[in-house]
Amino acid sequence: MKFLYPLLAAVPVAVGLELVHGSALWLFLFSGLAIIPLAGLMGKATEELAIHAGPQVGGLLNATFGNATELIITIFALREGLFTVVKASIAGSILGNILLVLGFAAFLGGLKHKTLTFNTCVAGISTSMLFLVMTALIVPAVFSYGGLDPRASRLISLVAAILLMLAYLTSLLFSFKTHRHLFHTAHEMLEKPEWGLSLALGVLFGSVVLVAVMSDFLVVSVEPVVAALGWSEAFIGVILIPVIGNAAEHSTAVLMSLKKRMDLSLEIAIGSSTQIALLVTPLLVFISYLSGRPMDLIFNPLELTVLILSVLMVNYVIRDGDTNYLEGMLLLITYVIIALAFYFIKI
Amino acid sequence: MKFLYPLLAAVPVAVGLELVHGSALWLFLFSGLAIIPLAGLMGKATEELAIHAGPQVGGLLNATFGNATELIITIFALREGLFTVVKASIAGSILGNILLVLGFAAFLGGLKHKTLTFNTCVAGISTSMLFLVMTALIVPAVFSYGGLDPRASRLISLVAAILLMLAYLTSLLFSFKTHRHLFHTAHEMLEKPEWGLSLALGVLFGSVVLVAVMSDFLVVSVEPVVAALGWSEAFIGVILIPVIGNAAEHSTAVLMSLKKRMDLSLEIAIGSSTQIALLVTPLLVFISYLSGRPMDLIFNPLELTVLILSVLMVNYVIRDGDTNYLEGMLLLITYVIIALAFYFIKI
Amino acid sequence: MKFLYPLLAAVPVAVGLELVHGSALWLFLFSGLAIIPLAGLMGKATEELAIHAGPQVGGLLNATFGNATELIITIFALREGLFTVVKASIAGSILGNILLVLGFAAFLGGLKHKTLTFNTCVAGISTSMLFLVMTALIVPAVFSYGGLDPRASRLISLVAAILLMLAYLTSLLFSFKTHRHLFHTAHEMLEKPEWGLSLALGVLFGSVVLVAVMSDFLVVSVEPVVAALGWSEAFIGVILIPVIGNAAEHSTAVLMSLKKRMDLSLEIAIGSSTQIALLVTPLLVFISYLSGRPMDLIFNPLELTVLILSVLMVNYVIRDGDTNYLEGMLLLITYVIIALAFYFIKI
Repeated sequence: MKFLYPLLAAVPVAVGLELVHGSALWLFLFSGLAIIPLAGLMGKATEELAIHAGPQVGGLLNATFGNATELIITIFALREGLFTVVKASIAGSILGNILLVLGFAAFLGGLKHKTLTFNTCVAGISTSMLFLVMTALIVPAVFSYGGLDPRASRLISLVAAILLMLAYLTSLLFSFKTHRHLFHTAHEMLEKPEWGLSLALGVLFGSVVLVAVMSDFLVVSVEPVVAALGWSEAFIGVILIPVIGNAAEHSTAVLMSLKKRMDLSLEIAIGSSTQIALLVTPLLVFISYLSGRPMDLIFNPLELTVLILSVLMVNYVIRDGDTNYLEGMLLLITYVIIALAFYFIKI
Repeated sequence: MKFLYPLLAAVPVAVGLELVHGSALWLFLFSGLAIIPLAGLMGKATEELAIHAGPQVGGLLNATFGNATELIITIFALREGLFTVVKASIAGSILGNILLVLGFAAFLGGLKHKTLTFNTCVAGISTSMLFLVMTALIVPAVFSYGGLDPRASRLISLVAAILLMLAYLTSLLFSFKTHRHLFHTAHEMLEKPEWGLSLALGVLFGSVVLVAVMSDFLVVSVEPVVAALGWSEAFIGVILIPVIGNAAEHSTAVLMSLKKRMDLSLEIAIGSSTQIALLVTPLLVFISYLSGRPMDLIFNPLELTVLILSVLMVNYVIRDGDTNYLEGMLLLITYVIIALAFYFIKI
Repeated sequence: MKFLYPLLAAVPVAVGLELVHGSALWLFLFSGLAIIPLAGLMGKATEELAIHAGPQVGGLLNATFGNATELIITIFALREGLFTVVKASIAGSILGNILLVLGFAAFLGGLKHKTLTFNTCVAGISTSMLFLVMTALIVPAVFSYGGLDPRASRLISLVAAILLMLAYLTSLLFSFKTHRHLFHTAHEMLEKPEWGLSLALGVLFGSVVLVAVMSDFLVVSVEPVVAALGWSEAFIGVILIPVIGNAAEHSTAVLMSLKKRMDLSLEIAIGSSTQIALLVTPLLVFISYLSGRPMDLIFNPLELTVLILSVLMVNYVIRDGDTNYLEGMLLLITYVIIALAFYFIKI
């Protein structure tokens, strides 16, 4: 993680570019680069706070703030009315976690260690949840293509968002109260703090503010970038923003697999996907309603296809309780083909 | 089950409404309510007969008459030419068993008992069969969308129906003859009779006749209800009719999971789905041919999507040999979203 | 296998028909019949060579030449510009191996032996690979339907082909070098040679030449057959050509399951599917580029649907480590329905 800190230099550059009304392209680049280490700091500070707070509250903190960066970026995109970008980032975050994070972890970890084993129990529950949630996203979409009128689509989306949030709260109850004995590994990360409480709080506050400012810069420059480079909003949403928002998690997951702790890599990748689907997604719908411009949950067929395929795929990878560099490579290959496809598609 | 008996009072009300040419809406409601306890009685009588008949013939009886209510309702719908309703009820019965019956059983049983375990062997065979059968339903449909002419669609449907029936007969041979050692649990339900043989026969005969009469009332009032309430035939077929036809099974499955016999709940839910797909579906096709107005097996894309998703889903739930309230809740959430979508869609 | 040798009589008949400019229909029939035993001889000669070459090189030989017949036929189809036939044969070969070869092996072997068990490890890795590869084929196709321009489709197809080939080479490294301990069964087939080295080389050379000549006859007569019989190119590609090209493998796989060696049957069926997807498919794309008429990898929706369903299906069959005649029958039923659908569709 520490090797990302030099990227913090991008923060002042982005602020400077904004002040001198510099090119949107450079602003997009530098604000994007700046978010990478800030997201890492935010994650580290949350973890430190979590240790201070003890396993119960700490676990909740981690479970709730784990994807704060994605949430902040997408809230700014929502404010700009970039619904395509918002939904694309949701899909892209799940995709990126399953294919890219898991792919790199399995590939690099697998090159170092012959076989990476893990307990399939926790991963199994998360994968089941992820699949069930996918269904909750696919149904409104397929019915919407089938001729549902937009008002009904929005209503179903709102109900789905409420039910997903309910499922999220239930899953917290499940993993922190009624069935916590199943989640040893996940909770075990919380050892002893490296930072004092006030340092952790300060860093968290500072990084949240800076992430928010950088997200504002990033999102405002999306449309000029689209216009200048000819990239689609879908590509920016599905590929670029999730890579930026998840870079810190990527490096942690790979580090863990290199230490032969593939169970933690899986926990990060799949746990993060589930959180995006169950917490971030409904929150965005609620916020869109509060802001008076309601967003539906109708993903486009391309996003849905790659989502359902990648969720089925992670099932193939984890079901036997071990993985290796070949499986990692196949996940990465799939991601490259998907990224290329989103690069070329004009939607 | 006994708590459903008061609903038998709906039988004379429905008959009265029919005699005085009462509102179709009330007729739909009361004939629907009447079918619920009648289906329960029919199931109970079949079971009692099965015990009298001994394990072999009895098992066959149960396996064949388990979905007689759905068969009777859909035969009347067929007679009225309500092909949309017929196919929707087939899809809805499978859906309702997998998502609603299994969902309630896992949710309520899971709230009472921490974890519900079961042997994956029998459930595994049934799920495999269910998936393989789904494929047999998906292929004609997808080719039909792809431009198959209606005559060819009907021919493929007929061949598929014949092959499904052949598969059903083979599966009876499999589970009652060549591989019966695998099906301990399923056959063990047959203990000692509560009813005498003549009572069982009488109740069976009486309930079949009454179910047939009520089904007639129910089906005849579908079109007026569609016209009056603006509900789609798809909604009535996918959601309402299966809920009515399966209510008794629902209560048995939940009762079993509350008694920590989740294996029996699974047996009921998945066994019933398989039977609908392999026995009821081909029978309906054959009857439609005999009646001179052949029905194809081309399900619409929405029905197919929710079918394939729910069959994949049940696989996620059962593959690890245990379930809990969280999984049950996710199944129920999915059902609610699907029901809502079918409520709003106008097909 | 030996019972196929009488079909060699079709070789001179086909040559004769070509010389006297006989009917395309008879040429199609006899060249097709001739390929069946020739493919078997080619396979046998490769295996004998493989034993002479020792386990490492021999395994590589088997892994590379296993689908030489399909490759030769499709290269001739490519030369004629029959892209539909080429892609259909790729899909049909995978389909035929999973549904027909596996189906017959499980059905006939299952009739003889109650239950056929196998180690799920190697089969599991191959199935994962197959699913991951499917994704690599589905993504370009779905994006292409979604409005990708043909130039971009071809570019993505080329990149996908390069990545698939890379995956294939990596999988060779995986199974013959870094993780060869997992592949006992697969390598164990190599025992002691029945043929001398020069006989094996001679038969290999001879059968390759004759397969090439027969493939030329077969492919040249496709269009007249389409015109005369009204069969679609899709039907010829998906059903007929793969049956011809895989007949020898079919008989070996069934023979193995009759000897209760279902692990070898699986190895043949799934290994062959993987090889088609990872080796034959990219090779065909490269050859099409070299020949100046680039072929994309955009399969049609019908092919993709049946491919993805059959790959999911094989997962259901193998995941529990045993199979039986009922599962075999369901695979065969699915194949019959698919074949019928491709027979009637006009694409």
